[in-house]
Order: sequence, then C-alpha cells, then structure tokens
Amino acid sequence: MSPTLIPDVLATRYASAAMQELWSPAGKVRLEREFWIAVLKAQRELGISIPEEAIQAYEQVRDDVRLERIAERERQLRHDVKARIEEFCELAGTEHIHKGMTSRDLTDNVEQLQVLRALKLVHLKALAGLKRLAGWSERTRDWMLVGRTHNVPAQPTTVGKRLAMSGEEVLTALRRLEDLIAHYPMRGLQGAIGTRLDQEVLFEGDSAKVRELGARVAEHLSCPATFNAVGQIYPRSLDAEAVHALFALGAGISSFAKTLRLMAGQGLATEGFRKGQVGSSAMPHKMNARTCERINGFQHILNGYVNMLMGLSGDQWNEGDVSCSVVRRVALPGAFFCMDGQLEAWMTVLDEMGFYEQALEQELRQVLPFLATTTLLMEAVKQGAGRETAHEVIKEHAVAVAEAVRGGQQVHNDLPERLAQDPAFPLKTEQIQRILEDPARFVASAPEQSDAFVRQVQTLWDAHPQAHTIQPSPLL
Amino acid sequence: MSPTLIPDVLATRYASAAMQELWSPAGKVRLEREFWIAVLKAQRELGISIPEEAIQAYEQVRDDVRLERIAERERQLRHDVKARIEEFCELAGTEHIHKGMTSRDLTDNVEQLQVLRALKLVHLKALAGLKRLAGWSERTRDWMLVGRTHNVPAQPTTVGKRLAMSGEEVLTALRRLEDLIAHYPMRGLQGAIGTRLDQEVLFEGDSAKVRELGARVAEHLSCPATFNAVGQIYPRSLDAEAVHALFALGAGISSFAKTLRLMAGQGLATEGFRKGQVGSSAMPHKMNARTCERINGFQHILNGYVNMLMGLSGDQWNEGDVSCSVVRRVALPGAFFCMDGQLEAWMTVLDEMGFYEQALEQELRQVLPFLATTTLLMEAVKQGAGRETAHEVIKEHAVAVAEAVRGGQQVHNDLPERLAQDPAFPLKTEQIQRILEDPARFVASAPEQSDAFVRQVQTLWDAHPQAHTIQPSPLL
Amino acid sequence: MSPTLIPDVLATRYASAAMQELWSPAGKVRLEREFWIAVLKAQRELGISIPEEAIQAYEQVRDDVRLERIAERERQLRHDVKARIEEFCELAGTEHIHKGMTSRDLTDNVEQLQVLRALKLVHLKALAGLKRLAGWSERTRDWMLVGRTHNVPAQPTTVGKRLAMSGEEVLTALRRLEDLIAHYPMRGLQGAIGTRLDQEVLFEGDSAKVRELGARVAEHLSCPATFNAVGQIYPRSLDAEAVHALFALGAGISSFAKTLRLMAGQGLATEGFRKGQVGSSAMPHKMNARTCERINGFQHILNGYVNMLMGLSGDQWNEGDVSCSVVRRVALPGAFFCMDGQLEAWMTVLDEMGFYEQALEQELRQVLPFLATTTLLMEAVKQGAGRETAHEVIKEHAVAVAEAVRGGQQVHNDLPERLAQDPAFPLKTEQIQRILEDPARFVASAPEQSDAFVRQVQTLWDAHPQAHTIQPSPLL
Amino acid sequence: MSPTLIPDVLATRYASAAMQELWSPAGKVRLEREFWIAVLKAQRELGISIPEEAIQAYEQVRDDVRLERIAERERQLRHDVKARIEEFCELAGTEHIHKGMTSRDLTDNVEQLQVLRALKLVHLKALAGLKRLAGWSERTRDWMLVGRTHNVPAQPTTVGKRLAMSGEEVLTALRRLEDLIAHYPMRGLQGAIGTRLDQEVLFEGDSAKVRELGARVAEHLSCPATFNAVGQIYPRSLDAEAVHALFALGAGISSFAKTLRLMAGQGLATEGFRKGQVGSSAMPHKMNARTCERINGFQHILNGYVNMLMGLSGDQWNEGDVSCSVVRRVALPGAFFCMDGQLEAWMTVLDEMGFYEQALEQELRQVLPFLATTTLLMEAVKQGAGRETAHEVIKEHAVAVAEAVRGGQQVHNDLPERLAQDPAFPLKTEQIQRILEDPARFVASAPEQSDAFVRQVQTLWDAHPQAHTIQPSPLL
Repeated sequence: MSPTLIPDVLATRYASAAMQELWSPAGKVRLEREFWIAVLKAQRELGISIPEEAIQAYEQVRDDVRLERIAERERQLRHDVKARIEEFCELAGTEHIHKGMTSRDLTDNVEQLQVLRALKLVHLKALAGLKRLAGWSERTRDWMLVGRTHNVPAQPTTVGKRLAMSGEEVLTALRRLEDLIAHYPMRGLQGAIGTRLDQEVLFEGDSAKVRELGARVAEHLSCPATFNAVGQIYPRSLDAEAVHALFALGAGISSFAKTLRLMAGQGLATEGFRKGQVGSSAMPHKMNARTCERINGFQHILNGYVNMLMGLSGDQWNEGDVSCSVVRRVALPGAFFCMDGQLEAWMTVLDEMGFYEQALEQELRQVLPFLATTTLLMEAVKQGAGRETAHEVIKEHAVAVAEAVRGGQQVHNDLPERLAQDPAFPLKTEQIQRILEDPARFVASAPEQSDAFVRQVQTLWDAHPQAHTIQPSPLL
Repeated sequence: MSPTLIPDVLATRYASAAMQELWSPAGKVRLEREFWIAVLKAQRELGISIPEEAIQAYEQVRDDVRLERIAERERQLRHDVKARIEEFCELAGTEHIHKGMTSRDLTDNVEQLQVLRALKLVHLKALAGLKRLAGWSERTRDWMLVGRTHNVPAQPTTVGKRLAMSGEEVLTALRRLEDLIAHYPMRGLQGAIGTRLDQEVLFEGDSAKVRELGARVAEHLSCPATFNAVGQIYPRSLDAEAVHALFALGAGISSFAKTLRLMAGQGLATEGFRKGQVGSSAMPHKMNARTCERINGFQHILNGYVNMLMGLSGDQWNEGDVSCSVVRRVALPGAFFCMDGQLEAWMTVLDEMGFYEQALEQELRQVLPFLATTTLLMEAVKQGAGRETAHEVIKEHAVAVAEAVRGGQQVHNDLPERLAQDPAFPLKTEQIQRILEDPARFVASAPEQSDAFVRQVQTLWDAHPQAHTIQPSPLL
Repeated sequence: MSPTLIPDVLATRYASAAMQELWSPAGKVRLEREFWIAVLKAQRELGISIPEEAIQAYEQVRDDVRLERIAERERQLRHDVKARIEEFCELAGTEHIHKGMTSRDLTDNVEQLQVLRALKLVHLKALAGLKRLAGWSERTRDWMLVGRTHNVPAQPTTVGKRLAMSGEEVLTALRRLEDLIAHYPMRGLQGAIGTRLDQEVLFEGDSAKVRELGARVAEHLSCPATFNAVGQIYPRSLDAEAVHALFALGAGISSFAKTLRLMAGQGLATEGFRKGQVGSSAMPHKMNARTCERINGFQHILNGYVNMLMGLSGDQWNEGDVSCSVVRRVALPGAFFCMDGQLEAWMTVLDEMGFYEQALEQELRQVLPFLATTTLLMEAVKQGAGRETAHEVIKEHAVAVAEAVRGGQQVHNDLPERLAQDPAFPLKTEQIQRILEDPARFVASAPEQSDAFVRQVQTLWDAHPQAHTIQPSPLL
Repeated sequence: MSPTLIPDVLATRYASAAMQELWSPAGKVRLEREFWIAVLKAQRELGISIPEEAIQAYEQVRDDVRLERIAERERQLRHDVKARIEEFCELAGTEHIHKGMTSRDLTDNVEQLQVLRALKLVHLKALAGLKRLAGWSERTRDWMLVGRTHNVPAQPTTVGKRLAMSGEEVLTALRRLEDLIAHYPMRGLQGAIGTRLDQEVLFEGDSAKVRELGARVAEHLSCPATFNAVGQIYPRSLDAEAVHALFALGAGISSFAKTLRLMAGQGLATEGFRKGQVGSSAMPHKMNARTCERINGFQHILNGYVNMLMGLSGDQWNEGDVSCSVVRRVALPGAFFCMDGQLEAWMTVLDEMGFYEQALEQELRQVLPFLATTTLLMEAVKQGAGRETAHEVIKEHAVAVAEAVRGGQQVHNDLPERLAQDPAFPLKTEQIQRILEDPARFVASAPEQSDAFVRQVQTLWDAHPQAHTIQPSPLL
C-alpha cells in the first residue's frame, strides 16, 4: 500500500468482499460493460444494425478490466466515459456500443444497478442474520428473564421473546426493503435532459420502439421498473429512499446490540470471547461488548448518509445538475459498506454470543416478588379487596423493601412475608407462595410470540435458498 | 387567545382543519374513546361479560369531549389516563372500559391511529395535488421550453414534460406511501412489557382468544396489521419510517417549487398574484414566488422531524422506556402539520400559477441555435463529417457567439450563419434552416412522457373518489 | 382552552414562564416596541426630528399589548407589520416609529433579540444547573465507585469524578456559548436588500450617520456587534450556530442523564421518588428514571432543530428570500423551549436524586479484585515478573473467576487467592491483601479532578449573581 | 492500484496533499511518534529516568514509517498499538516510550492532534479564499447589479457588495473557528478511565507532577488547553463541535456558489471555462457552473458528517466505550477532506470566474424603472402625495408594465412615461428622468460595505503570512 494512499475505511475494514466488488473501480467497469451489452442486445432485437458477433466479442472481454490502461486513456482524452468506451471497443475489436447514448445514460443507470444489486445482497444477508436470531429465539423460548422498562425490573418475560422483539423490527424493515427492490425504477435511456432525443434520432422517430428499448434493457438486467419522465438525472429522493431503507433495517439490529450491551453490563450475557485475543491490555478479565458497540456506531453513520442524501431530495433545479454528484459518490457506497459491516458484525455476534443462565435465574429470584405485584393485585381484587386499597398496600411494602435492600439493611426480598402479614391485604402466605412458585404464568404469551417470530423467519428462509450459504467473515 | 399561550405555529398557521382535528387534544380524546369501544366490542364478541347497552352508552357520549373537566380530574388524580377513564365512564354511566389494558395499550395504539389516519389524509391530498399538476401537464403538453441542465440552456423540452418530472417523483413516493398504509402494523393490546399478561389473565390463559382479540380490534378500526412481538412500545423505527415517507412525498413537491422559483426569476412563470394583496410594501411590482419558497421551507422542517425520529431508531433499551415520549409528542404532529401545510401550499400554487408563453418563446428563439447543436452534429456526421471534427467546429463557433452576446458585441444569435459559412462544416444554410424550423423534433418524447404521466394520475384518481372534493384553504 | 386550538407542546408542557414570555405573541410585540424605541432614540440623537415627548409616549404604552386588537387590524390591512405600527401609534397618540425602516429591519432584528436574550437566559440556567452538579461532586468527592468502560467494570473511580465528567462537558459548551453571546452580530437597519437605502435617504446620504445609527441601536439594546454586509436577511448559518450551541450544551446534560439511567438500572442511584405519585399504576415499586429519559429525548429534538436550520445554511439565493421563514418560526422557539425544558428537568433531577451508598460499596467489594489487576500487574512487574507472563496469568485466572461466578459455580470473587497460589505469579497473599485494602490509591486523581471542577464552577458562579435565584418549576 | 482496493473518494479526488498527509496511515504514525516524543521529553523534565540519547534516537527515526512492517507485526501481535510501539522501539534501538500510558492515552490524543492541525490548515485556506474574494469585491466595488430578493429584481446593489455578503458570512464562521482553535482542549494522559492512575503510579503518587506533565505535553505540541475530568474518552460533543465549525465555514462558501449558479443561469457570470476541456460532449457551448455545484454538494456531505457526530453527543455511557470509534474513523477525516475539497474548489472558482459587464448593464437598464419605485415613492411623498395613494398608483402601473412585457405586448419598460402621465402622481417626466439618471444613489451603502469587508480581510491577511502562499491544486 502506498504510504499516502488513503483507503476507504468502511470498505477496507468492515465490508465483505462481495460488497466491495460491487462498488470497486473494477466492479463498476464490469457493470458498465454489462449495461452496454444489454443495450446492444435490445437495440439489435429492435432492428438496429449490430452484428451478433460484435456482441459476442464484447461479452468475451467483459471481465478483462485493466484500470491502469483506462486511467492512461482518460489522461489523454480528458473524458472518463470516452476513455472507457475506447478501451472496451479496442479489447473487443469492434465499435458498436454507446449508440444514441449520452454519458448520463450510462452513469446514472450503472449506479442504479449498483444500488439495486447491493440492496439484494443486503436483503439476503439480513435474512441470514434473522435465521440465526430465530435459532436463538427458539433455543431460549422458555428461559425466563426479568423484563425491564425504564431500565429497571418490570415483569417477567423470556430471552426468546426479547430476541424476537428486535427480530420483528428487522422483519418489518425487511418487508419494506423487499417492496423497494420489487419496484425500484431505473432511469433508462432518456438522453441528456430526459426527452430521449438521441434514441429517438437513432430509431428515426419511432417512439414506440424507443419505449420498448427501455423495457427490454430493464428486462435484460432484471430491473423491475423504469421511470417515464425524468430529466438529466432520476429524482434523487430515490437515493434517500434506498439508504433510509438501510437505516430502517439497521434499527432492529441496533436495538438488539444496545440491549445486549445492557445485559453484558449486568453480567447476564456476553457477545463472545474469542480465544487468544488480548482484550484490554490492562484489564484482561473484561468481556466487552465491543462488536455491539460497533453495531451501534454503524447506525449513526447510516444516519449521516441518509442526511447527505436527504439534502439532495427536493433540490432539483430544472432538468437537473451535478450538485448531487460528489454527494452520491460518498454516500451511496458509504451507506452500503456501512450496512454490510453492520450485518457482518451482527451475524458474528449471533454466532458467538451466550447467556448466563444462572445469572438470569438469580436476578429473577431477587426481584420476582416485585414483578409478581401485578398478579398479586389482580388476585387480591378477585378476593374482594378494593383495587386502590390493595394497590396502596402493595406499593407501600414494595417501596419499603426496595429501599431497605438498596440501603443495605436487608438482602432478602421479603415482600411476600410483609404482604401476608398485613391485615389490609387479603392473600395469605401459601396463596402468595403458590403464585410465586408458578413463574411460567407470568411470562404469558412470551413463548408463543417467540414461536410466531420463528415461523415468520422460516417462511422467508425457505423462499430464499441463496441466503443459506452466507457466513460472516472474521472481523478486524 | 391568552396573551401568554403559545399556539403550535405549524398547526395554527399552515395546517388544514381536518389535520388539526386529528391531532387536537379533543380529537385525541375522541380517538381514544373509539379505541376503547372497539376493544369493548371485541371483548364482548369473545365472551367477556360486557352488556350491549354499556357499549351503546359509551357510543352515545363518545363525542361529548369536555377538556376542562378532564384537566380538573387529572389535577386531582395526578394520572392522565385514569382521568380520561373516569370522565368517559361517568358520562356513559357505566364502567366497562380499559379491562385488561395498561396505559400504554391505550396511548401507543391511539397514537398509531392518529398516524395511520393522518397518512391516509395525506395520501388523498397528494392525489388532489397530482390531479391539478396532471391538468397543467396536459394543457402545456406541447408548449416548448428551453430545457436547462446546470441551470443553463441545454436542449428543448416542453412545459408539460417539465411538470411531469416532479409529478413522477411524487407518484413514486405515493406508491411507497400506499404500501406503508397497506401494511402499517398496530402495537395491539400487549400489556406493560409486551407479553399480553393482562389480557391473558382476563381471558384466563386462553391465548388463542387473546390473539383473536388483537385481530378483531384491528379490524374494527380498519387497521391492516398488528405486531406479534413488541415490548412496552412498538419499535420506534416505524415512526421514522412514517415521517420519512412524508419527506419523500415532499421531495417532488419541493423540486416543483424550486424550479418554479427559478422560472419566476427568469420571468417565465408566476405562482400567482392575488388581487388586493400588498406584495412588498416597498416594491409593488414584485411577483415573488413566496408560496414556493414556503414549500421549500417545509421540506427542511420535515427533514428535521425525520432526524428527531431517526434518533429514536435502534435505541430501544430492553423492553422500552419513555425517552421517546417527548420526541414523538413534538415530531409526529409536527411532521403531519408540516406535510399538510406543504400540500395546501402546493395545491394553492397549482390553482393560481401561470406561464408567460411569449417569454417562453422569446427565450427559445434566442438559444435555439445552441440547443440544436446536438442535432446539427448528428446531421453533419450523416453527411460524412468526422464526428470529432464537426464537434470541434460547432464548439468553436458556439462559444464565440455566446461570448459575443454576453460581451454585448452582438444581440442576434448568428450561429447558423457562422456554421453555414465555415467550409469545415458540411451543412449549408437551407439545410440548417430546415432543421431549426421544425422545433417539434427537438422535444422528442417529451409530449408523450407528459401523456403517460397524465394517464398514471388519472388511474389513481378514478380509484379514489374521496380525493375529488379536496380543496386548499386560503393561505395565511 | 378551545377544544381545537393546538398549543405548542414544548412551550406549554416543558418550558419555563420566562422562556415562554420571550417567544410568546405578546412578548414579541413588547420586544418590537423596545426595538422601535431604541431606533427612535438613536435617530433623535443623530438629528432626526423626533420630539422627546413622542418617545416618552411610546415608552408609556410599551407594555399595553392587546393581541385581539392587533389581529383585527391585520385582518383589515392584510399586512402584519402595518397593523402593529398602527396599534402602537394609536396607543401612544403619535406617529414617529418605523422611519426609514423596512419590514425586515424590524422582524429580523427582533427575532435576533429573542435569540440573544434566550441565549443569555440559557446561559444563566445552565450555570444554575452546574452549581447543583458541583455541589453533588463536592459531597461525593470520595465515594468510591466501580468505573465502567464498555458498560462493564474497569477501574475504581469516585461518584464525584463521574459527575465532574459530564460537568466538564457542560462547561466546555458553556464557554463557547459565552463566546457566541459576546460576539452575536445583529443585522441592523440595512433596508430591503441590505444597502441601507432607506436610512441613507432619511439621513440624506450621510452614510457616517447611518453607520453610527446602527451602532447606537445595538448599544441601546445591549447587543455586542452588528453585521456590515448583509442582504434582505442576515446569514442563516448564524441560526444554525445558535441552536447548535444549545445542542452542544445539551450533550453533557444528556450524558449525565444516560449514566444515571444506567446506574438506576443497577440499583445504584435514583433520580428521586416524589411522595404521593402513582409511579406505574401496575408496578408500584418501580423507581423509573423518567426525567432522565426525558432529558435524553430533548437531545434528539434539539438535533432535529439543528438539522432544520442547517438546511438553511449555505442556501441563500442572491440577496435572500423567505424560504427560511417557516423554518425559523418553528425551529428557533422550538429549540429554546426544548433547551429550557432540558435545563428544568436537569435541575429537578439534581435537586431530587440520590445514590445508594451501600449498593455502591457492595458492587465495589464484588469486583475490586478484578479492578485491581492493573495495579497487581504493575506490582508483579516491579517484583521481577515478565510483563507478558504476568498479564497472561492474571488474565487466565480472572476469566476463570468471572465465568465461574456467572455460571453460578461460586459467589465469592477468589481471584486474590488464585493468584497467590499460582507459582507463576510473584505476589503472595499478604502482599495482594495489602494492595486491596487500600482502595483509595485506585482512584488516583479522581477526587482532585472533582475539586478542580468545583473550583471552575465556583468562579463562574461568583461572576453571575443573576443565576443565584434560579429554581426549576415543578415538572408536569 | 489494486483492482479491488477502494480508495477514499473524498481524499483521493478532492483533498489537497497537505490534508491527505495529515490523515494518511503514514501521517498518523508520524504524529503518534511526535506525541510519544513530547511525552518522553516532559517525563524526563519531571524526573523520570529517560536518557537524552534515547529521545534523540527516537527523533532520528521518527519519519521512517514503513507501513508494511507495522502491518506484519500487527498480524502477529493482534494488537495495533503494541505493533507500533515495537516498530518504533526497534527502529530507535531503545525502549522508553509509552510509560504509564494506555492505548487510549495515545489514540485519543493523536486523533485530537489531527483535528487541531487540520483546523489550523482549514483556517489558513479559508483566509486564502477570503483574500481572493476581497480582491474581487474591491475590483467590482462600483459595478451596479440588479439586486434580487425572492429571485426577482428588487433594488440595485453592486457586484462587490453581493460578494461581500457571502464573504462576511465566511468571516463570521472564521472568527468562531479561531475561537475553537484557541481553546481546543486535549484529553491528555488520563489513563484507562480518566483517573490518571497509570501516570500516578509512574510518578509514585505525586499528582502535582502528573498535572504538570499534562501541561508540558500540551505545550510541546502547541495545544492550547487540556481537559481536567474525562473518562476513557474525551467528550464526543467536541468532535461535533469541530465539524460543525467546518459546516458553518462552508455556509458562506456555499451561498456564494449558489448565487453564482443563479447568475450563470441568467448569463451574468461564469465560473470559468478552461481551454481544451470537452464541456458536455453533446452541447459544446454550455458553460456550466459545475464547480459551484460541487461546492454545494460538499455542504450536504458536511451536514451528514455533522449528523454522524451529533449522534455521539450526549451518548456517553459511564466512563465511555467504543461505539464512537467507527463513527469517528469515518466522519473526522471525511469532514476534513470534504472541507478541504470545498476550499480548493472555492479558490479555483475565485481564480477563474468572471462577470459579463454588458449583461449586467443590460439587465439593469431593463428593470431600473421598477427598482426605482421605492425612491420615486419617497420623492412623491416629499412632494405632498399621500403615501398610500402614491403607492397604489405606482403599483398599478408597475404591474401593468410587467404583465405587458411578459405577455409580449411590449419590450420597452415605459413605467416612467406612464407615471409622468398619470395625474394622480405628482412627479413629472424630467423629475423622474433625473432620478433614473443618477443610478449611483440607488446602491446607497453598497460600495462602502464592500470597502469595510475588504479592510476586515486585509487585517486578518496581514496577521497570517502563512496563508500568503496557498494556491489551489488543479481540480479533477
């Protein structure tokens, strides 16, 4: 590596090889050539005189990408698109590409191809993560856990349900991502200002053929839709839309990571502890949830890229300009590298994390009497107590116990005893005990919510076999 | 108005009565009661002992909202939900609501009802705006216009096509808004931490009935879907999603406004000039595109609200907390008031704007020889000129003419004459003249792109008769 | 309250009376009149014929603000500024205000006065909060605490130092706020497009007097500086600057709140528990850090307002327009109400919070052997052990103990014993014990960092006696 | 270049060599070594036993940076800081660095050094840009120009004044940048959680020396201040602060670019047209303001980076964690590369731009009668006309003329004639003519505002000779 060359940090440190390839200089050249070939085929089908052998010649050299030669041509020609046209034609030994096309017909469409394919890759990886999460939710379906609201103990739930929560948030975003992929519109061959002038000239004014050309190119490239009326550029709000879809996908992943960081802080869970790693050089015992922290960091980065692109939304002047250019160069690959890194990190955590069952149980034991107060209240009312009175009695004792424990006056949570002894409270010791001894009732629908989540994921999983082989790469 | 009471500026100055009603204190109380009644009905259907007359009693007083009485109760009880329960029960003379419900079961769902209904209102108003835009696009289908990229003349297009551009951007966002409305998931009756504990107790552990309850409540309220596994709260990324859908909708509207501001600056268009209005007190002739400027301002506000809500995405701690509460109180109504104001402003401009045909023609005349260079180049190549040579010749003369005009040495654009006289350029005077006299060919597909846009809007329009009566209110 | 009037939620629920007054409709009228009077005085001093009695007449009715009458006038005149001019003149019985002024000369400057005075109010309140925080830091100077990085135990620190951390972040932002206040430039009387045309006419071309006029008006209003070259508007990046200064101030407050929420989750602290309050109706024992959650929510709102205003930065077209108008109407008061609410909430927490000393001690006891590893390592090296070897030994045992405790195999942290028994580790039982029995050494500079923070605050406090009487209002 | 290596696009395409060096992998290593050496010197001065020759040995090899060797070490050690320690020590042949330091003591401080030095570089370049702008403002001090508000003609101003407007916005941001540089606080040697434990141990509890150490290190590195009480990390709001200062600086530059784009669209100005460049391949005459568009694009990118870092503000958990790490890796260098690119682009435009004087004059001639209406109104009032009556007369005729010109009924602006003939208007033909013939009076203070701006810049310029040699590199 040159000492002065500054590599893209998100690509180099966090993104997978597949995502890097999509946005790499060489990958973009390959995609451009794929696009030119699709146009050639469609033009030929619609009667433009292009020999079949020419197309074959282009196809044969499509993957022969030599960046240095292209750079050399660009230095001479001072025009990037022309440089790439000449290189491809010389390699193929023929000159048929780029007919009736303007530079923007090439670049906008190819960048959209990058976006669309990257969205599809993200979709599959998110599914691979969800499958892992569903596996955890299934395994921990019945592991009781102290549910927390406001970060303090609230009611019992299960580990499986807690995991399903973030999972369902990811599922919700995934559905919307699928909708985006299914309707993502390509700009198409619309010419310098969107009136299709050059293709109209090429097809001698046969606008039906020009429309058909757009449809066929999209089909050759597996693109689901095309715009009808654009300018020099397609509306940039579509870019904000795509990257916001990534941000939305990251939300559930980020909430998962945040809760795992909280659980690690309480000693209930770990994101994994790889052998041989020097944790902190000064504090070797520490089991830091660093990868989860990184996942949360990625979410802030995605937020920033969404903002860059939102700045372009609604700012089109007339038929367009290039104030968007540098923004998209930065934000589009950046957002996908970041999302990819987040997915890699998420899968890694899901592969390596663990829960400490004894710690979970111990916490539950300590606070169960508090968590049972809702049920105790309902039972007391059933036995004839006034709701408000019973509530007041419970509250008084509960607060007293909590204060005593925090103040070090006692360790044991004796709320059951206190309530049983209070004449204002109708339930007796054994009644209270019976309620506390059947903790499963406290988790209510949690296990079946876990089941429902697992089924939702399984259905998607079965529909997408391409996701089955996805594995995270080792993290830096 | 109390001198110290500070009204919500977006609601009061810019939003329509219908949108204000949805988010007003009284409107929220009505919606809460509607929700309680839907729960009552569903609980009754599923076997909970609730008399039909009780439901009727609640229904009869549903719209009898007295905020002062509720406020007085809240001061006494120090609990907002209890205050509203007591008020509703006393009005109805019965006590059956809120069975097995926690506060959050009420508030989260009611806020989602506000969001969902506001989304539907936005959808209809956007359609009402699009219909107006399509009308303009149809009327100006063939009005030639100097298309601009980089804010300078590029190629001819039509006014109708230019309008269709922003229209198609709105259409794209509208499709995604429809998808959101069609799949918007309600939190449902999930209890304090999402395990449905209270309803499970109410239904004595019959979890099938509890699930069915959720489905029926959603159906009573015309909600398309419900979450399965949530915590105290539904995932807040859904709020960011909803408000980002508004921002996306605003993008096309905002680009429309920006281009109209540019056209007003060139004297080509006006957003309207109402009789009797003191424009600027100092400069009475000015026809400022103030409403378009306001439309652009709204877009920045929407951006801010998206950001507030993005800050909540991926930040759920365990089963949830209320760090989101104040944010949602501000950003959700704010975003909908803002969107509503933008739509009102857009419709108003569309009702009052105008284009100066003579000015359009004059500009076209002046720059047509430049705009025709693409076509002249292609014709020259057809006649045997080398593409690069012809390009160089045209460029040289074009730049010379442009400099001379800007420098005041000449007024007339004599590019055709210069080219005809240049021996290096193969076309002769009459050939060039013939090309310039047929300007329609320069706009290529623009008119049919306009037609296609009009057809797309008409289809949506026919499907939504509720949009047909929507009119903007007079702007402040 | 009208059932349909929608109040500003931030102002009404969270902001103090003083901040509401500044941004209220009536407050703005008062400020406008103050501005007009300042201009009158300066114009009179510079020779414009304005009777002293006229100024007195205006001053006498300055606070007689009748919004309904002004609204009625505006309905008739259809011009807001004219309506307010007429009202003020009729009340005073004279007509001298607004000479050589355009509407923007009034509105931009008055809005800046609101911003500047609101900044000063924020400054004082932040200082009042810091004083409370410094009091806590002083009282808890020596309370040992398990310092955490990555949310897991790291090294000992003190409560006072932990509080000083967020305090120093606030101090840093406060210094920058002071700098902003000290240099905040007013737009001044620059006329419709910033060339001071109208005042130049009024002063018959005496531009030195016009410049002097600007300086004197600023002085009358205690404004530190004025712009030289603006357009219709002052640069909107100044608004983003002001609101970003609020966001920066909120950062330390927000970090304070977040850490308190974490500590509440561990049972180490409470933000306070007011008597008589129904916490959660279902879970009476819960001591939720709801106000801290709200503080964090405010930070997201501030972020959104910064974004609204950043959207205006760098978007000035020529001499300006009003695309900023609606944005500033929303974001400027919104941001100050939000900041004010955050400061109120912060002071309230600081007045009511508490730390559980026994819980702090118990946690320390449990993890001290881990936290001492850095020191044990250093001592072992001093005694001749190889650093890497000693590190490896400590790490192995530490991880084993941590796993055993989490796994429920043991409760006691026996790391000291394990190390003492390991022949590869040079320190013996009593040496280790001696280190552990002197925990104060582990906190190193923490107490004196607390002292330094307290001193910094005290210096500021002494310099601003106006801050001494500030008390938070009761929270809703 | 490797076909798969993805370079940082902002660094590679837009940033200067000096800015790249600061943030390059090798540059960071050099900076780290500089930091270690500063610590060595300060420790030695304070009594730690470090031979002078050791320091010299380190200094001699400071710039011998071999990234491949470091990478190889890191692969073996799996610890980045250790790898760089070993490399530096082996090169120097001695082992004295990093005494009493933790990794964060190195990395946080070095990153702050990068920020501080990059801020200083930005400061100088902004000044170099301002100097160019001031030169333009001086040269065009008296060039009359149609001032525009709402993008339509308003009142006359001058080119020099218009340029001074954006210049003053930059100056305002520059002052605040200077304040930031003058008070930028370094984290210092605070240890793993900010208690300075390790240095306290090294100095055997002599905390006065430890404090002095911090001060001396800062002095060796020309850092103006240090934090007192931080955690593992310094408060991340400082990063948001620094990058927001860049955004603020970009605002005036961006407004400059936006107005130039508008002027280019009217044919009044050009950002320059380099010889030999193929503009648009299809439209050779076009003189696009592409660099100004790019400048505006940079502003959106800066906005996004500010947002990334605002996401970290107020989110510190306890003594800190590394959720900020990946965000800062992306946003800090990204923001500085972006700012640097914006400054390079700005200077380039300032070096190459031009105004078309004839076009400016022609526009002025056409609209002057409109622009003079304010003056005509004032003169009419002086001659006894009622203000409202005269206003109404002017307005009626002005609107009629404007409509007639736009409607093609007339070309000449005959407002003067119409007014002179209207008996309701007191001024006669020659009076009106006299007013119109003295256009200089219309620009009022504009020229002297330009002068004042030029003086402000000159003062700064004289104070910073290092800025005098700064030249932009050729743009890609």
